[in-house]
Amino acid sequence: MATDAPEFTDSRYRNGHVWAAPAAGQTTHTRPQPARLGRMRIVVPAGGIGGARFLRGLRAALGTGTAATEEQTTDHSITVIGNTGDDITLFGLRICPDLDTVMYTLGGGINEEQGWGRTDEGFTVKEELLAYGMKPTWFGLGDRDTATHIVRTQMLAAGYPLSAVTEALCDRWRPGVRLLPMTDDQVETHVVVNGDEGRRAIHFQEWWIKHRAALPAEQIVGVGAEKAEPAPGVLDAIAEADAVILPPSNPVVSVGSILGVPGIREAMVDRTVVGVSPIIGGAPVRGMADACLTAIGVETGAGPVAEHLGADLLDGWLVDEADAGTEVEGVEVRSRPLYMSDPAATEAIARAAVDLAVELAERRGERG
Amino acid sequence: MATDAPEFTDSRYRNGHVWAAPAAGQTTHTRPQPARLGRMRIVVPAGGIGGARFLRGLRAALGTGTAATEEQTTDHSITVIGNTGDDITLFGLRICPDLDTVMYTLGGGINEEQGWGRTDEGFTVKEELLAYGMKPTWFGLGDRDTATHIVRTQMLAAGYPLSAVTEALCDRWRPGVRLLPMTDDQVETHVVVNGDEGRRAIHFQEWWIKHRAALPAEQIVGVGAEKAEPAPGVLDAIAEADAVILPPSNPVVSVGSILGVPGIREAMVDRTVVGVSPIIGGAPVRGMADACLTAIGVETGAGPVAEHLGADLLDGWLVDEADAGTEVEGVEVRSRPLYMSDPAATEAIARAAVDLAVELAERRGERG
Repeated sequence: MATDAPEFTDSRYRNGHVWAAPAAGQTTHTRPQPARLGRMRIVVPAGGIGGARFLRGLRAALGTGTAATEEQTTDHSITVIGNTGDDITLFGLRICPDLDTVMYTLGGGINEEQGWGRTDEGFTVKEELLAYGMKPTWFGLGDRDTATHIVRTQMLAAGYPLSAVTEALCDRWRPGVRLLPMTDDQVETHVVVNGDEGRRAIHFQEWWIKHRAALPAEQIVGVGAEKAEPAPGVLDAIAEADAVILPPSNPVVSVGSILGVPGIREAMVDRTVVGVSPIIGGAPVRGMADACLTAIGVETGAGPVAEHLGADLLDGWLVDEADAGTEVEGVEVRSRPLYMSDPAATEAIARAAVDLAVELAERRGERG
Repeated sequence: MATDAPEFTDSRYRNGHVWAAPAAGQTTHTRPQPARLGRMRIVVPAGGIGGARFLRGLRAALGTGTAATEEQTTDHSITVIGNTGDDITLFGLRICPDLDTVMYTLGGGINEEQGWGRTDEGFTVKEELLAYGMKPTWFGLGDRDTATHIVRTQMLAAGYPLSAVTEALCDRWRPGVRLLPMTDDQVETHVVVNGDEGRRAIHFQEWWIKHRAALPAEQIVGVGAEKAEPAPGVLDAIAEADAVILPPSNPVVSVGSILGVPGIREAMVDRTVVGVSPIIGGAPVRGMADACLTAIGVETGAGPVAEHLGADLLDGWLVDEADAGTEVEGVEVRSRPLYMSDPAATEAIARAAVDLAVELAERRGERG
């Protein structure tokens, strides 16, 4: 969905003219970059709802294919590095909430109102599991969603890595992006809480859904993260990326979880990275990111989050107009409306992020 | 549901007066039989639909508890040895069609019209699996049913044997019988067919559902049967049984499959065994048992099936009036109406089978 708002009419990257593409037959002394011929490659580390909605805007801004029409108006490409830290095994089924939210949102199957789960969803299976006394009772397992988990669980049991499973699931959904899990290894975010039952670590999902992040978190741990390896394709996608864009996903348990896989953050430092602040005026755009930030000792503010992500990683940082004047040393901060209130607004935000990345990449090129 | 038909008014076993029970404090020279004090213990090796319906009639005839009311008017007990030969793993889920049919039928959850599957069933999960291109497409996987398979699969993966899983599932359904799988080991009935694709073995379910048993079967094999052991409780139940009653289940792939587990048939030979013929007038009461009988070279007739089961095993054999005059050497054959046309008719058939068992047991006792 295009917008005609004057500030986003710049269509340089849409037409693929941004990057100095060698003319046909022209050789260069640097290593060949055939993929840059007329197309821009964006990498987006994304969590669930916020990341998925941003991606829909980015896809529109870049004119890449959509699931509905499979229309691809440009050769630009988007590679999504999906958070798997909130993955969980329930009822013997492997559930990947963030990957599924991205897949369903971009594939046209999402429940738009709630932002997660399938549209036209039923809960017969859950009702029956409850009748058998199965626990937990707090997870919203839908019937359509269950089928996705059944396919995934069966493929994993057959020995396929999560990246291959995700690709197979996307064969159906055709999200118009390349969706990679951050890792094929098991990394699960656990939250250390200190409540009536004493100090204990619970799965992020239990903390997030059952306790609505209201149980004060002492620590957030990516169990297995230190030994995890980036999934096949992740490091290559980053190395070949013209820009990495951090969507307004949870900076701790989504983006932070992805950056916590050894090698991913390091690879991104070498690229042009622009982030979209998930915090507006001292509060999360949606969700309960503030509870996560508090747990790791970071103030809930657009500036502190950028500082937490690090000036070595970030080149640019988009903040809302409410946070105009935010300064982060070593990072180019721009302010603009950041509420993803409708598809057009979201597309405009995505376009602004790409615009800033292009500008900063050019500046880098001039320096380099 | 009681019937007042004159030939079935004998309520000896209902009142528990059949067996010579030692008076309180009285000792006997044979091994103690405390379970026979005022109650009768029946063992029924059962397949799916036919077996389950017969069991409902038997439960009514004995006045044992029903799921609906949990009313138990006597201390008689029924132990069902369920066929697991048609179990199959599909979509990563372990499916036990016969155990579930017995459980749902006796627990009040069965789809009465089709005789298998759950009442008020939906097929959303199946629809979604098809959308992912999952195979096979011929299995009628209902949403409610899926939950049962999820619970079972999860418990099996956690290391519980099928017998423990079945007990846990029955905690919900309260079928009014003790339901044991014939074995905790994997035994799967495969059918050797010789069709357009050459000679090959396919799973019984594929032959039965996809090909509707129309593909001529050269052989029926219980894969794994020779190494299987009876599930815990099976041999004890048979040893303590006052009678074993074979319901009108498929004599090859249901009853035959159970008898094929080493030790089960041998244990039954020592008991009073009465069978209800699944063949009436040369055709199966329901299902496609004739195709199975043909495959193993047995004529589809009430007499030939009894001979196939064996006079060493069978003491009595109930045949339909259409087969009056059937003679099987060494077996007491009686004829009566055998169509399970409604609950009252089914209860009367079950009562006739118990009556015959009681009579033959008394005769045995006189001989011994």
